[in-house]
Amino acid sequence: MYDYLRDPAAIYEESFATIEREADFAGFDAAMQTVATRVIHACGMPEILPDLAYDPEAANAAVSALRAGAPIFCDCEMVTHGIIRRFLPAGNEIICTLNNPETPDIAAKKKTTRSAAAIDLWLDRIENSVAVFGNAPTALFHLLEQIENGAPKPAAILAFPVGFVGAAESKQALIDSQINVPYITMRGRKGGSAMAAAALNALSSLAGKSE
Amino acid sequence: MYDYLRDPAAIYEESFATIEREADFAGFDAAMQTVATRVIHACGMPEILPDLAYDPEAANAAVSALRAGAPIFCDCEMVTHGIIRRFLPAGNEIICTLNNPETPDIAAKKKTTRSAAAIDLWLDRIENSVAVFGNAPTALFHLLEQIENGAPKPAAILAFPVGFVGAAESKQALIDSQINVPYITMRGRKGGSAMAAAALNALSSLAGKSE
Repeated sequence: MYDYLRDPAAIYEESFATIEREADFAGFDAAMQTVATRVIHACGMPEILPDLAYDPEAANAAVSALRAGAPIFCDCEMVTHGIIRRFLPAGNEIICTLNNPETPDIAAKKKTTRSAAAIDLWLDRIENSVAVFGNAPTALFHLLEQIENGAPKPAAILAFPVGFVGAAESKQALIDSQINVPYITMRGRKGGSAMAAAALNALSSLAGKSE
Repeated sequence: MYDYLRDPAAIYEESFATIEREADFAGFDAAMQTVATRVIHACGMPEILPDLAYDPEAANAAVSALRAGAPIFCDCEMVTHGIIRRFLPAGNEIICTLNNPETPDIAAKKKTTRSAAAIDLWLDRIENSVAVFGNAPTALFHLLEQIENGAPKPAAILAFPVGFVGAAESKQALIDSQINVPYITMRGRKGGSAMAAAALNALSSLAGKSE
């Protein structure tokens, strides 16, 4: 037998206490500290904190939308499976259109990735939703383009595309954009579905608390 | 319109070329370079390479098992959804027992996490399988304990538990163990389902190539 913590509540408690010790949350309000803590928890890296960029309205906007029953749009299946269902305040629907039957045709017609094409299938119901990106820079770029072209807007964007081609650029484009949608994002190459789902889970947990 | 790469093949090519430029693969054989490249691709961090620890037999052992139709056991749903089905060389079954109806009862009886309890439901079919951990240190510890207690062994273990409590320790326990099962792992706190799935996907892609 190895000596290790087996109690889930104790594991969470020790994890969050370690993060609190190691990360400097000066300047973070309580809601964003909750978000940042869960994002750090998902990746084991307190050192990412300075790269977390956000609109000060983002946490409130997402919490309000989730309480109002907003659907949650995800750019990939892994994000949908990282979302903790029991935290959702209104049984919110979780939608990923990446594997819809029409997505490859849209991608072929628009000469883009399936991830970007999948965004077009969000637009009917995107207004006041929460949009979550844990993978694809092209999907985030394409959402920005569609909103700039007049598409309806989500209530908030959680943007954690990851990798070497377009990830940093797509997130910087979101930060620099004039679309006026509150966002939470991670500057640079780092990101991924675990961080994206963790941000959403933090906001759901806040939404589930009494106002 | 933003200026960004939209062609999936070109995106992969540029990603892998960036990794090749930035990571020092000296000492890696071709198979392990493929694995390491995909793990780095999944997290955007070439700097993790020195923390990748592995048995020199691991890639071959996993490739042979996958070709022989080995089932793939995963500690969490996110890993199962990161596995690229079309790469699998023998339509290999992907199994996650975390949400099996009997798992909470086993956890309560053994006073451990659901993640650890789920391992007990692997044991009937674990022999010569590939075991993949992208989340839970307790699950990896519990598998080590079960094998040390005489349970059958998988063909290979891909171990990427992540976080602040037990992750580094469980992976070090695997490295130090005498169970004689080839492994690929990431030392320290870093890991996660994307890295774990990426390692499996790399091995599947190798298994799909002609011998």
